[in-house]
Amino acid sequence: MNFVCPVPSEAYETVTLAHGGGGKVTHRLIQSLLVPAFDNPALAALHDGAVLPWDGEQLAFTTDSYVVRPRFFPGGNIGNLAVHGTVNDLAMCGARPVALSLAFILEEGLPIAELRTIVESVRDACALLDVPVVTGDTKVVERGHGDGVFINTSGVGVVARNLEIAPQRVRPGDVVILSGPIAEHGVAILSVREGLEFETRIESDTAPLWPVVERVLAAGGWDVHALRDATRGGVASALNEIAEASSTGIVLDGAAIPVKDEVRGACELLGLDPLYIANEGRFVAFVAPERAGRVLAAMRSEPVAREARVVGRVVNEHPGTVRMNLAFGGSRVVDMLSGEQLPRIC
Amino acid sequence: MNFVCPVPSEAYETVTLAHGGGGKVTHRLIQSLLVPAFDNPALAALHDGAVLPWDGEQLAFTTDSYVVRPRFFPGGNIGNLAVHGTVNDLAMCGARPVALSLAFILEEGLPIAELRTIVESVRDACALLDVPVVTGDTKVVERGHGDGVFINTSGVGVVARNLEIAPQRVRPGDVVILSGPIAEHGVAILSVREGLEFETRIESDTAPLWPVVERVLAAGGWDVHALRDATRGGVASALNEIAEASSTGIVLDGAAIPVKDEVRGACELLGLDPLYIANEGRFVAFVAPERAGRVLAAMRSEPVAREARVVGRVVNEHPGTVRMNLAFGGSRVVDMLSGEQLPRIC
Repeated sequence: MNFVCPVPSEAYETVTLAHGGGGKVTHRLIQSLLVPAFDNPALAALHDGAVLPWDGEQLAFTTDSYVVRPRFFPGGNIGNLAVHGTVNDLAMCGARPVALSLAFILEEGLPIAELRTIVESVRDACALLDVPVVTGDTKVVERGHGDGVFINTSGVGVVARNLEIAPQRVRPGDVVILSGPIAEHGVAILSVREGLEFETRIESDTAPLWPVVERVLAAGGWDVHALRDATRGGVASALNEIAEASSTGIVLDGAAIPVKDEVRGACELLGLDPLYIANEGRFVAFVAPERAGRVLAAMRSEPVAREARVVGRVVNEHPGTVRMNLAFGGSRVVDMLSGEQLPRIC
Repeated sequence: MNFVCPVPSEAYETVTLAHGGGGKVTHRLIQSLLVPAFDNPALAALHDGAVLPWDGEQLAFTTDSYVVRPRFFPGGNIGNLAVHGTVNDLAMCGARPVALSLAFILEEGLPIAELRTIVESVRDACALLDVPVVTGDTKVVERGHGDGVFINTSGVGVVARNLEIAPQRVRPGDVVILSGPIAEHGVAILSVREGLEFETRIESDTAPLWPVVERVLAAGGWDVHALRDATRGGVASALNEIAEASSTGIVLDGAAIPVKDEVRGACELLGLDPLYIANEGRFVAFVAPERAGRVLAAMRSEPVAREARVVGRVVNEHPGTVRMNLAFGGSRVVDMLSGEQLPRIC
């Protein structure tokens, strides 16, 4: 039998850091407060962005705010992260990015030189993708009422007419492909915060995913069912969201999930599970089995996904649940992140 | 001769509240740091939003963050303000609003009940306009690193093919119509902050402007040249922006500008000029003279603009400058707001 746990109503009286963690508590806030208030099919799809019919085309529209701390970290900063994050949310809808908005909430006292550096990072990230910032906004709050720089980037993009990339299209038999080794963004941020030093400097994986997604779509077309970048809450939460939205089960091969040695070492030291750590340049693709080989080859042709591999499959059993086969035999449930592991990771 | 003052480079070393005030300092930040970084025609138009060609249609795209303090004020709250503000920016591009995004930056400790009230205000404001929230984001920052609730709403809308609403279309001879009495939003906010009591409670004018703009466009069509809502920096800054972007002069009739008695009284008490105070439901329209009567009548048919009136005209003289004829004779320059009058007004 198929028991589906009813979504509990919001159990907290005040906002906690966990409400922003991307795991169960965030999920519950969205399901209990936001989805009912704004009941419409685009939002209810719980996609990374909305896809709207637009004069024969399909328009993708997405938004994200960035509050990452520290603002500068190995491999990136809040500026290029904000571009990558929003372009990636569009890409996860199958959308070519067309234009971005850029809205700053600045704290009084921020050095203008630092703002300039961040703006230049935004500019460079946009230039690389040939996506313009077409509209913006700047607000300033008093010292002590913000935290240097918060950025919101929203984006519009276009989805080809012959595509439908959505969690609801995932079905038993689909192959789950992961685009590369995981947990690098979260571990890079945490090492700066905690002043940890490792033999190799661990850098964030922040990167724009549209170029590789473009290849995935060219190779897989209609047989690409869903895409999801594994940001807050990590690969575990991304897969749980898809399992829930598609009412399917997902079986992962634990041994197949790539984690770089130094990242695994850092995670062991810190007592963290890499499956729950945020990535900013990794995604999972759900593809019909007959096209999985071509899609995998297409992914590997782009540097950002050259270590892509098949990590699991979609099954009829345990709908809404992700299970992982363990290297030493047996399997375990991979639940959604509960609570907050790393606040302000993006 | 036509002297155009070169834009000075950013003279500040740190961000000040004035950078968010919507006046000269904001303008300089945008012109020295942001426009050069993201050089593209849509952004350089310095419109309230971007208008992009989109498969034969025109897509409007805009973003705004809201940091208003207090979050609840007479006549509205940060939730419906965020809907009105973004819908109004779309309307100022001549765009029918199609969809909004909603992104929260919450401070740890915010009562969930308050968040719920704000979400309900967003919902109600959207329902009235029949505009869905189709995508969203929620971030949480630690106590003391935010201020309760910041909201970003971005919006997409569609501009009819036969319209071009842009500051650059303003030309000498155009009639300037103001949609109603000014300065109510700013004075309402300030009275709460300062604990001022007046005989009549002064309420914010926050309101959605698409319904009246729809009538304006139906009545004026191609002869409607530009629209601008008079938010941060007030009517004075809105008119200066248009004068600069169109390289025309604007002459205002000081006696024609409507200000309610209690608002004028409050401004006198506080030493503020109503022309510089933020509005959230007032706009100026620049219309070819032969259609001005029809447009004015159309505006007055909507309650939100029933006190609309002609307040000035566009001239060849003093390009880039707004002058106001005074009731007792003579005239004065109405400059853009310099510095910050009321921080966190929206």
